[in-house]
Amino acid sequence: MQLPEDMNDRTAQLLLKAAELIHSKGFDATTVNDICDATGLTKGGLYHYIQGKRDLLYQIMRLAMASIHSNVAEVEAIEDPEEQLRAVVRAHIRGIHRGHGVLTALAEEVEALEPEHRSEILGLKRQYFEFVRGILQRMQDAGRFGDADLSIATFNLLGSVLFFARWYRDGGAMSPPEVADAIVDQTLYGLVKR
Amino acid sequence: MQLPEDMNDRTAQLLLKAAELIHSKGFDATTVNDICDATGLTKGGLYHYIQGKRDLLYQIMRLAMASIHSNVAEVEAIEDPEEQLRAVVRAHIRGIHRGHGVLTALAEEVEALEPEHRSEILGLKRQYFEFVRGILQRMQDAGRFGDADLSIATFNLLGSVLFFARWYRDGGAMSPPEVADAIVDQTLYGLVKR
Repeated sequence: MQLPEDMNDRTAQLLLKAAELIHSKGFDATTVNDICDATGLTKGGLYHYIQGKRDLLYQIMRLAMASIHSNVAEVEAIEDPEEQLRAVVRAHIRGIHRGHGVLTALAEEVEALEPEHRSEILGLKRQYFEFVRGILQRMQDAGRFGDADLSIATFNLLGSVLFFARWYRDGGAMSPPEVADAIVDQTLYGLVKR
Repeated sequence: MQLPEDMNDRTAQLLLKAAELIHSKGFDATTVNDICDATGLTKGGLYHYIQGKRDLLYQIMRLAMASIHSNVAEVEAIEDPEEQLRAVVRAHIRGIHRGHGVLTALAEEVEALEPEHRSEILGLKRQYFEFVRGILQRMQDAGRFGDADLSIATFNLLGSVLFFARWYRDGGAMSPPEVADAIVDQTLYGLVKR
């Protein structure tokens, strides 16, 4: 998993554990003591890594966004836009499936952040949105699409990807990469036969 | 707005106000006193309507699901499956836009319910999923689709609809019914030109 530049592996592990706890108990109901119990740290030890509960949520979101943006870096060199779209959706779905689904869920809680941290996280989300929209734009510029609204198309695509975090269970008919391909196929080609 | 059979209008108004409060503060951080302040009721008055905080969340979800299922009733008589799909997505988007978006968001918090209430709400969600999947099934049976997996297609469609609650702001380029149509068009016909 890709970490923010100034974050070490131990901090990331602690944040993932805390994220699971917050995801199951709720942010407000989770106390600093609960986090100490779950991570095996003393309060003093915990405050070595984070400044408090609100900072913890911010650090969790930075980790979530670093994971998303490492997907972008991974696929940036792919020239064909359709292949690039498939690769970034596969990487996003793989990240959610690897347990980063809790990060996905908590990344929605931007309202709980300090204003400057909120703008930072919203800016990172916007960058990702623009990256995905840019791939669709290249396909539209190449004449492959009609005059579809690409912002709506990007929201619809990301909505399908994010919903995977809620419904997918292992052991079903399709693997995560197969679901990713089905999302891209439906977005590009639709269900109605050509 | 359609209410559950045993719920009156005054209770529904109270639940909507409480839902907004819980949505902005978080379920755990919202106290019974906060709900009394927001609704202008005394504690005694509030307990006339609900049995406690957990019951309140359950009643909010019953209201959310009644709203969804009234959409189903509204479109049930439409014979053409494509028109029916368009009508149910429009109704769902209209409901979210009318402020039932808070209901949509809280309807995800099923983990906080008592087990028997959780099964009831999950059952109602499943019914809605099957209704939407059934519309796609009729189109597939009529030979209009290829061999796409319709469960994945239904999840992708619902993911796009639910994400509307998060990103849509009034004053943009498209009205809610236009977004609903764009979601249906993309699901059925995709972005790539035919």
